[in-house]
Amino acid sequence: MYNWMAREGIAMVMFEDTEGRRDASIRWLTGHPMDALLFLTVDRRSLLVPWDIHLAKLLAHVDAMLPYADFDRRSTKALRSAAKLCNIPLNSRIEIPPVTSYLSFLDYVEILDGYEVICRNGGVHDEAASCRVIKDEYELEIYRKAAKITNHIIDSLEKEFHKKSLKTETDAALFIEAESRKLGTEGSSFETLAAGPKRSFSIHAFPGFTNESFVEDGLSILDFGIRYFGYATDVTLTIARGTLSKDQEKMIGLVEKAYEKGKSMLKDGTAAKDIAKAVDTIFARGKYTMPHSLGHGVGLDVHEAPSFRGREDNDWILQKGMVLALEPGIYNPLLGGCRLENDFIITEKGAEVLTKSRIIRV
Amino acid sequence: MYNWMAREGIAMVMFEDTEGRRDASIRWLTGHPMDALLFLTVDRRSLLVPWDIHLAKLLAHVDAMLPYADFDRRSTKALRSAAKLCNIPLNSRIEIPPVTSYLSFLDYVEILDGYEVICRNGGVHDEAASCRVIKDEYELEIYRKAAKITNHIIDSLEKEFHKKSLKTETDAALFIEAESRKLGTEGSSFETLAAGPKRSFSIHAFPGFTNESFVEDGLSILDFGIRYFGYATDVTLTIARGTLSKDQEKMIGLVEKAYEKGKSMLKDGTAAKDIAKAVDTIFARGKYTMPHSLGHGVGLDVHEAPSFRGREDNDWILQKGMVLALEPGIYNPLLGGCRLENDFIITEKGAEVLTKSRIIRV
Repeated sequence: MYNWMAREGIAMVMFEDTEGRRDASIRWLTGHPMDALLFLTVDRRSLLVPWDIHLAKLLAHVDAMLPYADFDRRSTKALRSAAKLCNIPLNSRIEIPPVTSYLSFLDYVEILDGYEVICRNGGVHDEAASCRVIKDEYELEIYRKAAKITNHIIDSLEKEFHKKSLKTETDAALFIEAESRKLGTEGSSFETLAAGPKRSFSIHAFPGFTNESFVEDGLSILDFGIRYFGYATDVTLTIARGTLSKDQEKMIGLVEKAYEKGKSMLKDGTAAKDIAKAVDTIFARGKYTMPHSLGHGVGLDVHEAPSFRGREDNDWILQKGMVLALEPGIYNPLLGGCRLENDFIITEKGAEVLTKSRIIRV
Repeated sequence: MYNWMAREGIAMVMFEDTEGRRDASIRWLTGHPMDALLFLTVDRRSLLVPWDIHLAKLLAHVDAMLPYADFDRRSTKALRSAAKLCNIPLNSRIEIPPVTSYLSFLDYVEILDGYEVICRNGGVHDEAASCRVIKDEYELEIYRKAAKITNHIIDSLEKEFHKKSLKTETDAALFIEAESRKLGTEGSSFETLAAGPKRSFSIHAFPGFTNESFVEDGLSILDFGIRYFGYATDVTLTIARGTLSKDQEKMIGLVEKAYEKGKSMLKDGTAAKDIAKAVDTIFARGKYTMPHSLGHGVGLDVHEAPSFRGREDNDWILQKGMVLALEPGIYNPLLGGCRLENDFIITEKGAEVLTKSRIIRV
């Protein structure tokens, strides 16, 4: 990151991870998992400005830290002070996040009078994000362990489904949460979506889980993930209970076909959009349209690069070390929904299967 | 909202509620609780562009809706099409959210060639947010019911604390989630923070709850809320278990004093910063600094306007119909933390107490 800053002539960069502007790169760079600003200077110093200084002292690896309260919890004030504290020479280039709002951008430009404020795509923040896309061996080992926990939960769930012991959507969601924490995770990586046959037509059921039955005949969806040392898994099971209609069987068949096609194309060097298009073609032949993208990278964010959209401007090429979630799904207001999602590591030869969610027939 | 647009000469406005750019105003305006764009025109038409069209058909009250997939799930494409579909005359003013990133702002300006793009503080979006600050009778009735559920959970928790039946932080958090869903809520309004004596020194413990003991002597913090018809409650209990040290008793005394002072000042017409300053003074006399603000509005967002900071530029004056959370708290790496938080409705005479969380001695 520092070398990259030197090449680009950036004297200081600010990262921001606050409510409404989350950026897991601060956790990736320092270990601090919560609200903070981070300043890196081209002469290789790091200053963290955390909201919770006690927590930062335990978790963050940085050269210096100052509580956000010292700056009235204002990013403008912290940025100006950081430039001063770090002796950034006037006329230097200071880079701010590309997600900075237009109005904040104007504030930063005003407060950094005498400096050149850089806000762009393809800058330091995108460089950090693109480094995060390729997981190193340490990260892959975490993923293999996270997958083991996730698979253990999937197997336990399958047993419970056969016993009909998880009566409601809430029972299913809380079972996952309890199992997951027991196994030493940081909990769910997002709110579990447990949608019985009445609600599975939604991509993301609202609310995520309710007291509706989870043991009725038809198609139910269970979309969940765990977070382990920061890294998120993301899987979706479809539970097909009882005798299904011909149209419901057709939905399952299409999703399985789409899933197998997508999985078979996962390989270092393949264009992500080609996989998305191949799957779209399968669904189109079955007269369905998938209303969301085929998948996404996973990591410290549950949704991160690369994207699995079929759009022409999607330039992502799969690379060794990427960890991806593939999630073909189709939805029908009358029949319910069907989605199958698993996580994979891209290798030179193809995909290393991490998670083992499936369409479970009960 | 439409009258306001007419007065300001705004032909069309776009609201956005998507990952990383959440805006509960779309739910407030239409009932749709999830990812969508919303376009309002000065001639009183509304067009919703939801990610999940099936869900929107059930929940949204608008004149027209089109699936986001029709626009390749691109806000630029949807915005340009909306201007065309709604026959917005060239040279009109189109307003976009004030949180729009600087880079997206440039994209919108380019795509809306021929229109005047407005991105500002104090515009339509802030007008919606400021309308949301004052709750009407319908919203206040929801809050009274939400508080009843929250209080029921608090009372149940107190019984469990005496029985020592919630052994771990996870037990406490899942007890709340299960009770809350059973009572027909939309679930927790944020991830429950259950921090036993070893972790209560954090403002927001990380992770939110773990398998650490929740029955040990010392100060434990339990910060949670429920969401009922969209509206969030937010409360914090401190559990003081066993014999405390003199310094821990001092912390509790300070927080109780600060809380009573703050509560006594809640009244239509009072400046929020004066309350925050009064509380800061109490803590300063006790040699403590509160590392977060004294409170915040609650509503469809768990943190919304007004702010309870003591900063000079905090202009908020309490008004009848506001619903506020007050949460004085202090933290010490060796002694643990103590925070007490409840929700109130502002009335002309003072505060209507909604929730009844407290410092529970066991």
